[in-house]
Amino acid sequence: MSKTKISVIVWNEFQHERENDAIRAIYPDGIHHAIASALRETPALQPGALPLEIGTATLDQSEHGLSEARLADCDVLLWWGHKAHDQVSDAVVERVQRRVLEGMGLIVLHSGHFAKIFRRLLGTNCSLKWREADEKERVWVVEPSHPIAAGLGEYFELPNEEMYGERFDIPQPHSTVFISWFEGGEVFRSGCTWERGHGRIFYFRPGHEAYPTYYDANVQRVLANAVQWAAPRVNIVDRCPMSPPLEKLSPKQVSFSKVGIQQNKGDIE
Amino acid sequence: MSKTKISVIVWNEFQHERENDAIRAIYPDGIHHAIASALRETPALQPGALPLEIGTATLDQSEHGLSEARLADCDVLLWWGHKAHDQVSDAVVERVQRRVLEGMGLIVLHSGHFAKIFRRLLGTNCSLKWREADEKERVWVVEPSHPIAAGLGEYFELPNEEMYGERFDIPQPHSTVFISWFEGGEVFRSGCTWERGHGRIFYFRPGHEAYPTYYDANVQRVLANAVQWAAPRVNIVDRCPMSPPLEKLSPKQVSFSKVGIQQNKGDIE
Amino acid sequence: MSKTKISVIVWNEFQHERENDAIRAIYPDGIHHAIASALRETPALQPGALPLEIGTATLDQSEHGLSEARLADCDVLLWWGHKAHDQVSDAVVERVQRRVLEGMGLIVLHSGHFAKIFRRLLGTNCSLKWREADEKERVWVVEPSHPIAAGLGEYFELPNEEMYGERFDIPQPHSTVFISWFEGGEVFRSGCTWERGHGRIFYFRPGHEAYPTYYDANVQRVLANAVQWAAPRVNIVDRCPMSPPLEKLSPKQVSFSKVGIQQNKGDIE
Amino acid sequence: MSKTKISVIVWNEFQHERENDAIRAIYPDGIHHAIASALRETPALQPGALPLEIGTATLDQSEHGLSEARLADCDVLLWWGHKAHDQVSDAVVERVQRRVLEGMGLIVLHSGHFAKIFRRLLGTNCSLKWREADEKERVWVVEPSHPIAAGLGEYFELPNEEMYGERFDIPQPHSTVFISWFEGGEVFRSGCTWERGHGRIFYFRPGHEAYPTYYDANVQRVLANAVQWAAPRVNIVDRCPMSPPLEKLSPKQVSFSKVGIQQNKGDIE
Repeated sequence: MSKTKISVIVWNEFQHERENDAIRAIYPDGIHHAIASALRETPALQPGALPLEIGTATLDQSEHGLSEARLADCDVLLWWGHKAHDQVSDAVVERVQRRVLEGMGLIVLHSGHFAKIFRRLLGTNCSLKWREADEKERVWVVEPSHPIAAGLGEYFELPNEEMYGERFDIPQPHSTVFISWFEGGEVFRSGCTWERGHGRIFYFRPGHEAYPTYYDANVQRVLANAVQWAAPRVNIVDRCPMSPPLEKLSPKQVSFSKVGIQQNKGDIE
Repeated sequence: MSKTKISVIVWNEFQHERENDAIRAIYPDGIHHAIASALRETPALQPGALPLEIGTATLDQSEHGLSEARLADCDVLLWWGHKAHDQVSDAVVERVQRRVLEGMGLIVLHSGHFAKIFRRLLGTNCSLKWREADEKERVWVVEPSHPIAAGLGEYFELPNEEMYGERFDIPQPHSTVFISWFEGGEVFRSGCTWERGHGRIFYFRPGHEAYPTYYDANVQRVLANAVQWAAPRVNIVDRCPMSPPLEKLSPKQVSFSKVGIQQNKGDIE
Repeated sequence: MSKTKISVIVWNEFQHERENDAIRAIYPDGIHHAIASALRETPALQPGALPLEIGTATLDQSEHGLSEARLADCDVLLWWGHKAHDQVSDAVVERVQRRVLEGMGLIVLHSGHFAKIFRRLLGTNCSLKWREADEKERVWVVEPSHPIAAGLGEYFELPNEEMYGERFDIPQPHSTVFISWFEGGEVFRSGCTWERGHGRIFYFRPGHEAYPTYYDANVQRVLANAVQWAAPRVNIVDRCPMSPPLEKLSPKQVSFSKVGIQQNKGDIE
Repeated sequence: MSKTKISVIVWNEFQHERENDAIRAIYPDGIHHAIASALRETPALQPGALPLEIGTATLDQSEHGLSEARLADCDVLLWWGHKAHDQVSDAVVERVQRRVLEGMGLIVLHSGHFAKIFRRLLGTNCSLKWREADEKERVWVVEPSHPIAAGLGEYFELPNEEMYGERFDIPQPHSTVFISWFEGGEVFRSGCTWERGHGRIFYFRPGHEAYPTYYDANVQRVLANAVQWAAPRVNIVDRCPMSPPLEKLSPKQVSFSKVGIQQNKGDIE
């Protein structure tokens, strides 16, 4: 795993940007291209940050752009989806899950909280409260020493965002990096990490398609940090092996199970 | 949720006991009946322990004995499976998952580490090392103040058990109650808890079908404790609701997204 | 540990109520008496809740009312302090810490975040942001299935409270039960649990002396729940014992250390 | 925090090596020099690993070699102590704690489990079971993707070590990287991480003074990895500031507390 670069795929369902003028006006080439540009142009802060090799993939492509071969080479996958979660094939979901368990990083964005792959890896339904009201979000940095928070201040603001509110149905995060305050009265755990298998997962709340969130410098900083953080440390396929003893076993006693349990069971019951 | 009893279902795939004389000799009525008996006869230790109402269910029954109606009434489900995980229908797995997320407790036993429901809720592949060599297991109590450990000593021993060894591919437990030492040289996190949705999950390692493990008084104590611990506190269906603001929102500024992003985007890129 | 009641001590520094008319007007007998009354009058919700035996203790008493004998009998200690943290003797702090490690529950309230005993048990400085501006606090229930949240709705509000804001310098909680929203723009992890030794700790944010917070029915419900939750499961004194082997050790090889390391060390360096 | 090197101090109480011939034979210049040599000669594996600048400090030095100035420049402190924990001054312990909370990394070794600084940061008594019987320890890698485990196999063995057994009285680790198997029948969480304030802490069990453990290549690899992992990401002094509101507060209602609580209190009590 002495890598010299990080291979990144930015996945987007890429529906809304093609159907809706207002959204296309914000993200004319799709959210995936805005994110890819942001990653290309945000200088890394961490010592030892590796250069990125960035590609994109979308729902409409063959195998959603996530063939076995392509995923095998992928170090970090970012996922944006909103209204077409159901159209993602279960085979691709399983493939992505398998790669995360082997070590690939996964960054799930905003409405991706309801993506099949996120729910599959977390095991919960990932529901929340929501509201589209152009309201202010203030993202508080709860763990300033976490690598994903590098270069941020105590908080940052987004003047207009969709509201997501607690209770967010997730397993307890390994780290809770951000908690958001919303103008309308809610709070939300906006930046959470988990480990699944050998892979790292980061969920980042902001990023509604109706707002220019992915052009925000703080949001771009978070994504650039998260890619470096999520890059694989290992690539391990777990196989549940039979394993011979490492120590000499004592001579087997006649096992309870070998002489029949009836009389003993009588003793117990 | 002011309940007066805990409704328990002990689920067993119930294959091996019918096919193999040695195993039937140990568990003539099936592992589920041995566990149900143990739960009936193990006095509760906790203050406020509730009486149990215990039923069983098996793979061969219609809907594997886990109809919607039956699960709706179930407070705690115990799960033993080994060689027929693939025969459990995905519909039933989803149904059980949904009930756990609503608040039902789930206790997964031994080879149930590879059950669909366990992997679905944890999100990992749950692989491990294993060996059948009649060897000694010593189960160390790492969190003696955990309710599941009530009444146990510093450790307990099982003279003959299947070995399970690390690395066990699980998400970090909420609590690690037991860690096992094996004669052949391995260690294993043998008693682990997680929370998923509103439900509590406990995995307990011992219980290979070829040994009389479920007649062991310490094992029975653990199961009795775990049922009380896993009983639901709530019964909540998460629905991801739209939620009106609780505070008066400020007059909307003209949103970035409403006037078009092209020129602004130019500024950024 | 088959107890039939929970012995509770409500500790209060009891300074401000005697010095300041406005505060005395709210808590004429001291915050400790308001809390003790609340605990007496709030019916328990959990199955198996035990009756409480409630006493109080204050800073000015001999040994701050926390003699060895009294603490030995105490199951759950609640702690309110604000401006006299430094006057609490280190001997009493150590005594309380020892009891928590043995199994006693500890509930730390509001400005107790800076109490010696809280910082001692958490190991951090427990700093935070704060502001006294009579502003609204909305406490969101993040883990509705946690026993401490029993009987609450999705959130509750306090019309006037002191603001506490992140970053709160605490170790990652075992469970984060509540997160608060503040009118002035901050968020705060308002209900957090930890385990230390064999004891359970709960920190609960609301409770500024200038507001009638401890007369609020939701706050009283939280405290009543927390006392039941924090009650000891065990009472164990850890002694770091030498422990003879449980397995026969192999004949000792001549140890590297017994023949001298010089030549080997040469190989390495 | 864009650093170009990591400043390391290896602290050792350095008593036993001067008093006991057998121990001096293993570590003629003291354990601190053996560890410092190991760190100098173990090539870093992580991408972005920084070069180390390594110094040592011992109990007998003025301020135990840990003056304010020296600690201010220190990025990662390693701590080995055994029989003289009580001789470490409380002032130095507080100083080290403060630096960890600001962001300095701390690596506590073996018998350092009872060091004042470790107990201060964890809040527990850190007791365990122990035995000196020259027995085999097998260290299992439970989290192979953790940076501290980089380059290790599934386990490594030490032919002769002191036994440490559970229950180890520690707060639940943020990550449990290693679990040890002992020939005599015990298990132990041998590699654990915590976060305190802005600093990272790693405890590593092996390293009894009577064995050449610090010449073992796997042990040296762990220490080299841990230093890179523990290096500070930030340097933040928490000050518990008063903080003006970020949002306009609503006009204050007449507060309950301003009109007196007597009559209301009557209603409640």
